[in-house]
Order: sequence, then C-alpha cells, then structure tokens
Amino acid sequence: MTTRSWVPVPEHSDFPVQNLPYGIFSRAGEPPRAGVAIGEHVLDLSRLGADAGLPYAEDFAAPSLNPFMARGREAWRAVRARLTELLTDEAHRAAVEPYLVPRDTVTLHLPFEVADYVDFYASEHHASNVGRVFRPTQPPLTPNWKHLPIGYHGRAGTVVVSGTPVVRPCGQRKAPDAEAPGFGPSVRLDIEAEVGFVVGTPSELGRPVSAADFADHVFGVVLVNDWSARDIQAWEYVPLGPFLGKSFATSVSPWVVPLEALGAARVAPPAQDPEPLPYLRTDEPWGLDLAIEVACNGEVVSRPPFRTMYWTAAQMLAHMTVNGASLRTGDFYASGTVSGPEPDQRGSFLELGWNGTEPVKLADGSTRAYLADGDTVTLRATAPGRDGVRIGFGEVSGTVEPARGAAGSAGEAEQQQ
Amino acid sequence: MTTRSWVPVPEHSDFPVQNLPYGIFSRAGEPPRAGVAIGEHVLDLSRLGADAGLPYAEDFAAPSLNPFMARGREAWRAVRARLTELLTDEAHRAAVEPYLVPRDTVTLHLPFEVADYVDFYASEHHASNVGRVFRPTQPPLTPNWKHLPIGYHGRAGTVVVSGTPVVRPCGQRKAPDAEAPGFGPSVRLDIEAEVGFVVGTPSELGRPVSAADFADHVFGVVLVNDWSARDIQAWEYVPLGPFLGKSFATSVSPWVVPLEALGAARVAPPAQDPEPLPYLRTDEPWGLDLAIEVACNGEVVSRPPFRTMYWTAAQMLAHMTVNGASLRTGDFYASGTVSGPEPDQRGSFLELGWNGTEPVKLADGSTRAYLADGDTVTLRATAPGRDGVRIGFGEVSGTVEPARGAAGSAGEAEQQQ
Repeated sequence: MTTRSWVPVPEHSDFPVQNLPYGIFSRAGEPPRAGVAIGEHVLDLSRLGADAGLPYAEDFAAPSLNPFMARGREAWRAVRARLTELLTDEAHRAAVEPYLVPRDTVTLHLPFEVADYVDFYASEHHASNVGRVFRPTQPPLTPNWKHLPIGYHGRAGTVVVSGTPVVRPCGQRKAPDAEAPGFGPSVRLDIEAEVGFVVGTPSELGRPVSAADFADHVFGVVLVNDWSARDIQAWEYVPLGPFLGKSFATSVSPWVVPLEALGAARVAPPAQDPEPLPYLRTDEPWGLDLAIEVACNGEVVSRPPFRTMYWTAAQMLAHMTVNGASLRTGDFYASGTVSGPEPDQRGSFLELGWNGTEPVKLADGSTRAYLADGDTVTLRATAPGRDGVRIGFGEVSGTVEPARGAAGSAGEAEQQQ
Repeated sequence: MTTRSWVPVPEHSDFPVQNLPYGIFSRAGEPPRAGVAIGEHVLDLSRLGADAGLPYAEDFAAPSLNPFMARGREAWRAVRARLTELLTDEAHRAAVEPYLVPRDTVTLHLPFEVADYVDFYASEHHASNVGRVFRPTQPPLTPNWKHLPIGYHGRAGTVVVSGTPVVRPCGQRKAPDAEAPGFGPSVRLDIEAEVGFVVGTPSELGRPVSAADFADHVFGVVLVNDWSARDIQAWEYVPLGPFLGKSFATSVSPWVVPLEALGAARVAPPAQDPEPLPYLRTDEPWGLDLAIEVACNGEVVSRPPFRTMYWTAAQMLAHMTVNGASLRTGDFYASGTVSGPEPDQRGSFLELGWNGTEPVKLADGSTRAYLADGDTVTLRATAPGRDGVRIGFGEVSGTVEPARGAAGSAGEAEQQQ
C-alpha cells in the first residue's frame, strides 16, 4: 500500500512523503532556517520543533543543515521516522498544519556550509568522450582510469545555490596555433551535469573510511552543475589540473534528498574490469538509478542516466579517504559529468556539440556550441522511491550573465582568439 | 633608532617587537584564544582586552583569528599600532605585564579556520627540476608556466598545525614497468617547503581582486610543509592533478606574521620574460626576502631563498580571482615548493635526492632518498624587519608516523613495488 500524506501532493510532484528532502529557506524579514519539502509546501522544522515531538529541534533554527548533519545516521533516521509519522497520520494534522509554508513564498538558500569540495570523473562515457575530443591520437582513457576514481579538489567558496546568476568568467586562453595566450571572457562556457553527495558524519585524520560505511557518513544527495570554461581549462590544466576553468561557480540544488529516501533507487553499477583493489570493493552495490534531464532555455537537450556511472559514490568516498584524509561535516563531493552511451545522454556541451564541431540545435532554430549570455540551464532528476512512487530532486538552475568589466563581448573575444 | 620592548627579548629571537605575529594558544583547562608572540612570551590579547585600550578586543576570545582577520586592513593597523605602543612604552608595563604568558607553558593551535586552500607552483627552479626528473625528454617547463602562476585547490580540512604527527599515507602506486598498480604505504614520502598567505578581507563573487589590492586582503604569512607522497601522486595526477598524494596533511606554523611586519623584506622579484598579461602586472613589487631552512632530525639539509620565486603572492592573488572567484576570510594559499638555483637550496627531497638517485647524506651516516618513519622535518625562516632587526616565523615541524593498518612496513612495500 502506498503511504500518503494528509498534505495534498500533486501527481508527479518531486516531493511526495517518500522523499522529504531537507533545505534552508526564509521568508521576507525572517532568518534562514531548516525545512522539508512536501508537495507544494515547506514544513518549517525550526518552528514545528519540540511541540510535535521532533528530536533535535534546536538544530533546525540554524542557517545551514550542518548541525543536524553532524548528528549522524541514527539521528537522521529518528527525525525522518517522526516526520513521516507526523505527515501521514491524520491525527497530527491540526498540530502540524500551522507550520506548512507555501513553497512559492519562500527563498531557498545554500542548504549546507561546504567544507571541502571534491569533483570526481566517474563516468566512463564522459571520460572517453573527453579523451576522444582532446587526445584523438591516444587511448581515450588514461591508464589509471579503471583502477581508481579520479578526482580533484574544487573551490568550496564558490558553491552557490540554484538561481544564483553565473557571470561569464574572464581568463587566459590560447588557441593551439597562437604564439601567446590572450585574455578575455571565456568563449567556451559549458555545463557539467553531476550528482553530489553531502557528508554529515566526520571522520578522524589518519583513519580511512571504508566503502561499506558510506551510508553512515553521507547524509544526502543533490544535483550539481559544475560550470566549466573549456578554453581557460585547456590552457591551464597541465600539469596540476583544472583551476580557474572551474572555480568561478558550482551550482547545487536547494533540496538535499536523504540517502535513506533512495533505497529503492539502488542498482548494481556496471561491471568493473579489471577488478578494483580490495579497498574499492563492496558487497552491497551503491549504483543509483537517477534519471537526469538537462534543459537549455526550457528545452530538454539531454537525459543522462546516472545508473551508467562506472564508479559508485561509496567507492569515491573510500578512495578519497584511503590516504587517511579526514572528513568534515559539510564535505561535498560530486560525481563528475554524467554521460550515458547515447549521444542524447551526454552531460556537457563539450560532448553534445563535440567541441563545437556539431553544435546543438535548439527548437527556436538557434544553435549552441557552448553557452550564450542569457542562457538558462536547468537540471532536474527523478528516482524510484519507496512504495513504487517516483521522487524528485527539484532543480538546479542558473542563467549566464555577460562578463564584467572586460572589453568586448564573448562573441568578439571568439574572433580575437 | 631601534625600537625595543620592555619585555625581555633574547638576541636572535624570532619575536622582537618588530614582528608581533598572531596565534591561537591555550593553557591546561583554558579555552583557545588569541595572542601575539613577544620574545619568550605570549601576550594574551583576549584578557588584555579593553582595559588596555586594545580595539576589537572581543575578537580575541575566539578560538581562531578569523573574526579579527575579517575586520580588514584598517583594523589590523590599529591593533598593531596599539600593541606596539603598549609593548614599547614603559608606562604601560604595569598594566600589560600580568597578561604575559611564558611561551613554553602554552599549547599552540591552528591559528585560522581554513576556508579554501590553494597551492601554487611558483618557483621556476622547482618546476624546472620536477620537469627534468619526470619528463626528461621534454622542455622542463610546460608552455603555460611563464604566462600564469599555475595552481590547484588542496584539501582545507587536513591543514594542521605544527607538531601534529603525519601518518604515512597508504594508496595506489604503480612502477613504470608493472602491469597493474599495487596498494600500500607510500615509499616516497616527501616534504615541500613553502610559504603561505592567509586572506582576511573577503571579496564579492564575480569581482576580481587586483594585484595592487594584495595588502588589503592578505592578513599575514606562515610557513607551510605540504607533505607529498610522490608515488601516489605520480600514478593519480594525470589528467586532473594531485589529489591523495597531497591531501593527507599540510602543516602550517602556528604564528601568522602580519604582512605589515614584512615591509623591510620586500624586494623586486626576478625579471619576468615574457611580460605577463596586464592583470598580472604590478607597479610595486611583492617579492619577499625570506630565508628558509629545512632541517631533517635537527640537521639543516637545505636553505631555500624565497626571494628567487618567479611569481609573487600578489600575482597569485590576482590570478586566483581573475575569473570572478570570491575570497573568504580564512582562504589560504601557498607558494608551492621554494627552491633556489643551487643544489643546497632545494625545498623537497624529490629535488635534493634527485628522485632517489642521489640520496641526501645525513651527519649520522644514514641517507635519505625520501622520509623514513620517525623522521622529524622542521622548517624555519627569517626576514629583515623594521629597524634593521631580523624577525622570524617560528617553525613548522612534523614527525612521520608509520602507516596504520596496512600489512608490511614502507620498506617491505618498496620491495613489493
């Protein structure tokens, strides 16, 4: 039998009671605080508080989820169980209903304080496409790729919530045949459709976290758009990796879907050959069947299937800590671009437009090799939830604003380059 | 005339009144709080407080310097001016003396909460040495090296204060002739002698910070040992840069030397050819004449001269933000390994021992290609201060502990590899 909430939930809503994602919201003149999304509403956890027998109520007045995330898995379970009870048992309706706030009246904030941000590169299809585009004469995957989930640290301070405008970055870029680099607005501004994992429970320096302990440490999941300036990145990234080509903005969705809500989305990941080293093996698979949509100005241009990712989030966690690196509450790691095997499943314009050689055609007749000023990119995703109900992630959206204070538009810069 | 403090300061002390570095200290049973080092003492700023007319006294009860650093340059100047007055004018002695704590009775803590950590690669001698070792058939510097200060994000959560033990990391590494990678304790554990810059004043997302505004944003300077596992790094770093080879620990000195104390240390950096792009040019040079010493188990093995760095810290700051990336209070960026032109001026064992081919000989007759368990590495530095007095940075020190929970010692692992 399908569990239902007494709160009205429209059909195909991202937020049935099987989801209950956490976020930070505010209304005019009120401080940011924690809530969960249910249908068209936000349940104000900070005010619902102890009256309704909600444990850890004091954590929810904070302007980030970090205090609650730091409590650990037993606390996450207890609160979710109580919320499910409060929202499904009609007997609680009178007590709880006053704390429901219409979602369209709230402002959503960055839901957690980002400690360290790590970005992986875990899609074989994406890594192979990138290899074919940039290193056509070499094997598409580097020799280490199937032995470890490649990752690097990104800039935590420029992780922003959905809706934050993205200013086109300026920087150095050099055409292959140019003698010296030029400077100006990026002319190859791109997206990366990714899935992000938020750490709640910290770990001790010097003690690796095993893949089996994934669910003890990871609180929840968000959608990520890892904006990328391909021209800046191409010139800077050898030998120490991406830096300014990425660090201007990384957008995340405002609702953190609890890992516990994704039990029904677990699937076996693709077979791994060669078999990874023991610290990367897990008895219980952590593949996740998330169906992502990438829309440009409202038109869906790609549907990347997260279930095709080669490395799982549990393996990423084990790898990230195998050297003894500690975890902090608020650590955040993303999967890298999600691309499936089909051309319409690619998670970046670099791949969709094959580095500008086959620009994406939009319904309005225009084409996109890369993003134009004013473009809005929106990622959405859904997953199987409990009771056969589909749950959603909401969206992560961002609009490109023109470069600031630089002579010439991106279009002119393209010609100069 | 040389300004002197009424506090006794031994000859050659790192901490004459011309320095006044800030740190976070505690004594048994007392909370961590802010102080400045003077001679053999720490002046307890949190208790000295408002009685002595010290502005912003409330900031100094915090367990990190961040609240004070966030105040900005005028505040930093005002406090330094008042402290200088209090510590040099005998008239204040009776009021101030009760707040002096013997330095050998305190525990020193990480002085600031690290927001983002970026590591640069700004020594031409170091980058050339690394290129010669790892890419002997190619030009030692990559084509971008003289056009931009190459950098990447490191792990902020594993920045630790001097004295914190460093557990030898485990990880994947592959010998060039091996078919597959193996797993175990790093057998090429190294140091990188660096200088780090701590950001106080934040900046707005989307607005670059110019090199000319360096001193408005950077609060002070510390010594850094960026511990590096060369074998782990070599296998993982293509194409996205160093990750686990670095993220297990980065040690910093506990005293933050105010940028204002380093006025007499400013020198012209080496000539830059080709001339860098306009955003990297500065009218006023920010080269710094810091004399670094690297000691292994008490024996000095190298003396890297920071004045030989190709890129300045002001240029690094301008580059790091030119894409609009914002700064936060507590952002921390390091220079990369400091190596001078001479063999005994190299800031890593990779270079000192030429990747193991010419191991460093120690006075006790032993040799070091890389670090052994139990080794203690200590970095120190001094610089010209005001009044012709030399000021010092104290030290950053760390002792290597054996790998945990892994079968076999590092020595055995070497043979397996």
